[in-house]
Amino acid sequence: MVSKAEKKRRPKAEQPKGFRDYFGTAVLQRMEVLRRIEAVYQSYGFDPLETSAVETVEALGKYLPDVERPNEGIFAWQEDDTWLALRYDLTAPLSRVYAQYRQQLPQPYRRYAMGPVWRNEKPGLGRYRQFYQCDADTVGSASIAADAEICAMLGDTLEAIGILRSDYIIKINHRKLLNGVLETAGLRDQNERDAVLRTIDKFDKVGVNGVRQLLGTGRLDSSGAFIEGIGLSDLQIEAITDFLTAYSGDDSVCLKDLRSRVEGAATGREGVDELEKISELLAAQGYGDDRVTIDTAIVRGLGYYTGAVFEAELTSLIRDNSGRQQRFGAVAGGGRYDDLVKRFVGQAVPATGVSIGIDRLFAALEVAGQFAIEANGPVLVTVMDRERMTDYQTMAAELRQAGVRAEVYLGNPKNFGNQLKYADRRNSPAAIIEGTDERARGVVQIKDLRLGAEIAKTANLEEWQQRPSQVEVVRDEMVSKIQEILEKKP
Amino acid sequence: MVSKAEKKRRPKAEQPKGFRDYFGTAVLQRMEVLRRIEAVYQSYGFDPLETSAVETVEALGKYLPDVERPNEGIFAWQEDDTWLALRYDLTAPLSRVYAQYRQQLPQPYRRYAMGPVWRNEKPGLGRYRQFYQCDADTVGSASIAADAEICAMLGDTLEAIGILRSDYIIKINHRKLLNGVLETAGLRDQNERDAVLRTIDKFDKVGVNGVRQLLGTGRLDSSGAFIEGIGLSDLQIEAITDFLTAYSGDDSVCLKDLRSRVEGAATGREGVDELEKISELLAAQGYGDDRVTIDTAIVRGLGYYTGAVFEAELTSLIRDNSGRQQRFGAVAGGGRYDDLVKRFVGQAVPATGVSIGIDRLFAALEVAGQFAIEANGPVLVTVMDRERMTDYQTMAAELRQAGVRAEVYLGNPKNFGNQLKYADRRNSPAAIIEGTDERARGVVQIKDLRLGAEIAKTANLEEWQQRPSQVEVVRDEMVSKIQEILEKKP
Repeated sequence: MVSKAEKKRRPKAEQPKGFRDYFGTAVLQRMEVLRRIEAVYQSYGFDPLETSAVETVEALGKYLPDVERPNEGIFAWQEDDTWLALRYDLTAPLSRVYAQYRQQLPQPYRRYAMGPVWRNEKPGLGRYRQFYQCDADTVGSASIAADAEICAMLGDTLEAIGILRSDYIIKINHRKLLNGVLETAGLRDQNERDAVLRTIDKFDKVGVNGVRQLLGTGRLDSSGAFIEGIGLSDLQIEAITDFLTAYSGDDSVCLKDLRSRVEGAATGREGVDELEKISELLAAQGYGDDRVTIDTAIVRGLGYYTGAVFEAELTSLIRDNSGRQQRFGAVAGGGRYDDLVKRFVGQAVPATGVSIGIDRLFAALEVAGQFAIEANGPVLVTVMDRERMTDYQTMAAELRQAGVRAEVYLGNPKNFGNQLKYADRRNSPAAIIEGTDERARGVVQIKDLRLGAEIAKTANLEEWQQRPSQVEVVRDEMVSKIQEILEKKP
Repeated sequence: MVSKAEKKRRPKAEQPKGFRDYFGTAVLQRMEVLRRIEAVYQSYGFDPLETSAVETVEALGKYLPDVERPNEGIFAWQEDDTWLALRYDLTAPLSRVYAQYRQQLPQPYRRYAMGPVWRNEKPGLGRYRQFYQCDADTVGSASIAADAEICAMLGDTLEAIGILRSDYIIKINHRKLLNGVLETAGLRDQNERDAVLRTIDKFDKVGVNGVRQLLGTGRLDSSGAFIEGIGLSDLQIEAITDFLTAYSGDDSVCLKDLRSRVEGAATGREGVDELEKISELLAAQGYGDDRVTIDTAIVRGLGYYTGAVFEAELTSLIRDNSGRQQRFGAVAGGGRYDDLVKRFVGQAVPATGVSIGIDRLFAALEVAGQFAIEANGPVLVTVMDRERMTDYQTMAAELRQAGVRAEVYLGNPKNFGNQLKYADRRNSPAAIIEGTDERARGVVQIKDLRLGAEIAKTANLEEWQQRPSQVEVVRDEMVSKIQEILEKKP
C-alpha cells in the first residue's frame, strides 16, 4: 500500500500550463512541413541561422503587442545583474546577430530561421506558450523589391506545403499609410498612435464595434472585465474605422481611393506610393490580387514595423464539418522594420521579412483534414522463446539492412496476445513468429496485420478459417516476403 | 553625431555568456547529422516525441551531477506558486510524459527525441549552456536485451554518421557492480555512495591521483580553489581506484576478475551477471569488444542510473595537427534508470536509453576535418537597371523553377563591384548580367565564378584576357547554360 503522505510527495506528471507534447506522426508531419518551407527559402537564396533560445532582455527589446501584462509577455529570469529571457520571436535575435556580426555578413544578409519561440501569455484554448516560427528576412536592403519578393516567396511557400492557390490570400497594408490616416485624423503623439495601432490589430477578434468602443470610452470583454478605451473623439474614431473597412479587393481602385484619404499627409502618400510599387512588382511577376491584395485592416501587432505589413490567411480551406467558415487568424505575417537594428548600431538598417506560424498553420490544415502523413509502424519480431533473443535480434537486423523498420518485442513475452496488441498499437504492418517448431523446420510465420485487419472487418467464417493473412515461409525468404507485403497498398 | 548618452543607452549586440549562434553550413551540417541519427532510430522502431523546452522544476527532479551550484545547474524562474525551468536533458521530460500518458502509450514505449537542452553551468572554453541532444529510450522493458539493443543501435548510429568502426569505442559498466565494490569497501550510506560516484565520474578530467585526493582529504583545482574531499580511508580509496583502473579490454577475462572483486555483495554479483549477458548478446549479434567493451571507469554523472551505464568515445579520430591524441570526453552516453518514472507513479517502471551529444560530436568531427558539407551558394542575378527589377526577378524565378537556388541582388546596385563582391561572399557559382545592350540584343552574360576564381589563381595575362569564364548566351538558353555550369565539378 502506498501511504497518503508518500502519494502527496509525488510530483505531478503534467507539463506546465500552456505547453504541450507532440507524438509520433504529429512530429513527422511538422518536420515535413518545415522541410518544404526550408526548400523554398533556400531556393530564394536565404541561408540558415540558428541562435539560442536565450537572449538578454536588453537585446530582445520591448516590442510585444500586449505590453500591459506582467513580465511584458516574456519568460525572464535574473542572473547576477543581467536579465535573461526566452526569445519571443526570431526577428529580435536576428537584429542582434546582424548588429554583432555585420562586418562579416554579406550585404544584404538573407537568412532563414526555424524554431520555437515563447510567449508568457495567459494559456487558453488553442493558445500555447511555445510555438514554432519559420522566418525569412532580408537585412540591409531598402529596396521595395525586397518586400515584394518576400510576399511572392510566402505565396510559393504556402503552395509548396500543399495549400491551393485558391485557398489562401496574402493581405498587405503599409504602416506609413496607417500613420498618414492617424495624422489626418489629428493624432500626432507616437505613443498614442501605437496604442491605436494595437487596438486596430484586435479588429479580427472584436469586430468593428469592438474597435470603436476601445478607441472611445472602453469595452466589456467576454470575461466581464472592463477594458479602458483610448478616449478619441467620435470624429477621429469614425475616420479610423471608416479606413479600416475601406477596402480589400481590386488593388488599382483601392489605391486611388487611399490616395485621396491621405492627401494632406506626406508619410501617408509615401505609404500609398510604396504599396503601389509592391503591387506592380508582384503583378508583373504573376502574383495578382487574387493572391496578394491590399487590405486596410491589416496592422500587425508587433511594435517594430515601419513600412509594408502583410498577413497570409487561409480562406476556403477553413470550414468545419457543417461547412461554416472558421476564423483562424493569420498563419503568417511580416513586414518592413527599418529601426530594429538601429537600436544596436545607431544607424538605420533597412530590413524586411516574414514569419510563418507553423502550429497555427497546422491547426488550420488539421481542420481541413489535409496533410495526413501516415507513418508506417515497425515490423514486429515476436518473442516465442526468451532464450533466443539473439536470433530475434538478428531477424530485426536483417530487415533493417533491407531498409525495413523492425523491432523485437521487449515487453514480457509470456502473453502472446499482448505482443499482438502491441503490434496493433504500433500500427505494425506485419509480425514475425518463430517458435521451437518453426525453428526446427527452418521456417517462420508471417502475419500480414493490415490484411488481417481488413479481413476481420468483412470476412465470413470460411474465409477467416483459411487465415490467408498468415503465411509460412522458409527462413531465408523472410525479408523478401516482408518486402512483398509492404509493397502492397494498405 | 551620436551623443555619449545616446550611445550609452544602446543595448549590447551580444548573446548571453555561454550561448552561441550557428550560421549557414554549420546549421545544414547539424541538420544532416540529425537526419542520419533519426533514420537509424526509426529503423529500430523508435517513434518521435517532442516536448516543450519548459517543464515544472518539480517534474524535472534533481539529478544533475553538479548539485553544489546555485539553481542546481538549471535555468529556473517562478510563476505564481510554481517554479518553471528549461529542461536539462531529454530523459526527465520523457519520464514525465510516460507517467502522464502511460494508459495510451504502447508497452514498452520506444521513443526518440532531438532538441536543445540547457545547463546553468559556468561558461568556459568549448562549454556551452545550450546544446543539442539526440536520445532514444525504451520505457517499460526490464529486459537486458533492451540495454544491449541500445548499445548496438548507438554503434550503428555512429557509423551512419560516417565514423569508422575503428574510430569509436562504446565503454560499458554497471551501477550495481559499482555499488557492489563500494559495499565491499564498507560504504553503506547511499548519499555517501552517490558522492563517491560523482567523484569517480571526474576520473576523465582529474586522473587517478585527482580522484584519490577527492575521495580522501581534498584537492586544489586548476583555479587554485580547494575542493574538499569525502574523507574515505586509504584502504577504501585504494579499493575504489584499483577497481577503476582494473580493466578495459578482453571482456571475458575482465568479467572473471570482476566477479572475484564483488563476491561478498549480492548487488555486485547481479551487476556482473547483467554485464555478462549484455556482452554475450552483443557479441552474438556481431558487436564484439572491439566496439562495445567493459570499462570499470565509466560511471555517468547523472544521479538516476540504476543498471548498465555506457559511453561512446571517439578514439583514433581525435588527433590534433601534431598527431597527439585529444581528449574530447564522451560523445554519447546512457544507461538503465528504473526509478525515474517511479517518482511520478509510485511503481517501478524499467527504462533504458542513450543520449548523443550532437555539439560535442561535432567539435570532435571538426577537429578531424570530417563531415565538411559545402553548401552551394545561390546564382546571383545582378541589377544593371533598377527600373527592370521585374525582369531580373523573372530570371531568378525561372532558375528556381529548374531547381537552381537563385536570387536578385537587393543591395544598392550602383556599384557593380559590390554586386560581384556579394556573389563572392555568398559563394555563388555564377552571376547573370543583363544591361541595356544585352537586353536590346536578347542575350545575357553569364560569369562562371568558380571557374573565374580558378583561372585567377594560375592564369597568365593572355589566358586572363580571353576571359573564358564569362560567356554570352541568348536569353532563352540562360537556364540550360547555368545548369551546365553547375553540373561541372567545382
